[in-house]
Formats: sequence, C-alpha cells, structure tokens
Amino acid sequence: MSTPVRRLEELPRDEAIELLSSVSMGRIGFTIGGLPTIRPVNHVVDGDDIVIRTHLESTRSACDGAVVAYETDWLDRRTRTGWSVIVTGVASVVDNPLEIDRFDSLVQPWIDAPVTYLLRIKADVVDGLKLVAD
Amino acid sequence: MSTPVRRLEELPRDEAIELLSSVSMGRIGFTIGGLPTIRPVNHVVDGDDIVIRTHLESTRSACDGAVVAYETDWLDRRTRTGWSVIVTGVASVVDNPLEIDRFDSLVQPWIDAPVTYLLRIKADVVDGLKLVAD
Repeated sequence: MSTPVRRLEELPRDEAIELLSSVSMGRIGFTIGGLPTIRPVNHVVDGDDIVIRTHLESTRSACDGAVVAYETDWLDRRTRTGWSVIVTGVASVVDNPLEIDRFDSLVQPWIDAPVTYLLRIKADVVDGLKLVAD
Repeated sequence: MSTPVRRLEELPRDEAIELLSSVSMGRIGFTIGGLPTIRPVNHVVDGDDIVIRTHLESTRSACDGAVVAYETDWLDRRTRTGWSVIVTGVASVVDNPLEIDRFDSLVQPWIDAPVTYLLRIKADVVDGLKLVAD
C-alpha cells in the first residue's frame, strides 16, 4: 500500500490568523527563571492580537512585557494532516477595566479559579504551516 | 443550570509519564535567537526520557545541549476536563546509529522530509496537571 506524500506549506498571515480564530485554546511558551516553559490556555483573537487567560500569577508576571510564543494547532492523527500557527510577540497584562469586562465573557476559563489574569499578545510574527497530503 | 466546579490536581511523576506515553505528539518549547518558540512534534517515551523527531535543522541546533520544555495534553472541549504534562530538561541529539535505527521505527514522522533529526529530552522536571470536575 502506498502512503500519500505529505509536505509542509507556509500559510499567508491572514489565513494563519483565521485558523487561530477558529479554535479557542493553544499553548503559550515563555521563559521563567531563565528556562523555557509551556502552558495550555484559552484564547480569543482581537484584531491582530491574541488575548489569553491564565490563573497563574507566575505566568502573568513572567509574560508581562516579555516576548512570548503562542502556538495553536489542529492535527488529525488518522490522516496525519493539519495545521499549526505560531505567533511571536510582546505580551502585556490587560488592566483596563472595560477591556477586562469585554474579554471576561469572550475568553472562557476552564478552571474555576478565584482570580484570573488576561494577557494580550501582539502578533508581531505569525508563522503558519499546513501539513498537506498529495 | 449549575456548572460543575473544575479544579486542577497535581499528578505524581509516574502517572504524568504514563499519560505522556499514551499519546504520540506534543510541543517542544525552546529559545532560538533569544526568543521563545514552540513546534509541534512526534514523540516516544524511552524510560525517563522523551525522544522526539524534527525535520528542522534550526530546531536541532537550537535544542542540542539546551534546556527545553516539552508539553503534551489531552483536553476535552465538551466536558472541559483533561490533563497536561510539561517536562523540562536538557535536550541532546541522538547520534548513536543503533539508537537512530531503533527510534526510526518508533517515532513516526508526519512529514516526508529527506532528513530528520532525533532529540532526546531528559525528563529532569515533570509537572503533571489534571483538570477534574467535581
């Protein structure tokens, strides 16, 4: 049985942002104490920015003002096709009360934590990859 | 309608490694040119280490000898429960021909790239989290 040839295709920025908008969770990659770490979070796309929610004070303080990576993907284990979008940009805490109210209903937390934080990630660099089968 | 209360439970190392072994893909987080990035990859658990495959020379060279994060998760959007395991440790290129042969069949690539690299990640720190609904 011959297997189809799979290859990676780069996606234009608009298409990558559209795919990112089609899902509600991803993983934020950042540096904490000099070491890289990754946390799964929920997100919403706001124009060219990504707004995420975290309940961890350590994530909030490590990301505020720092360059972070945000990755989201959709991969089909059966066909082994899918896509991955990786955004790189500066993160900052959302502290405007009107913005907090707006995102509070848009970014649904999975955890019932007493306090959560919102972070806005500027999509300075957007790398979109699509895994296609010929 | 009342929604069940969800909370995070820390998992013991053994249980976290077992969950990691139950899936075949995850995301490696590392630093490249001083900036954090994340790439989705395939993995296999080998004792206490994780062996991943990458087709990118840039990933290979950035990770070899560096501390990286490796995250894998299983999240159910409907029930909003699931788990996430994050491993932190030093990565190194697998260059022993016998090991390359062994992992070549164990870690299946999704992409038909002409050359791929294998990286071993020492699971120095294992953080396992389970999202449970009461």
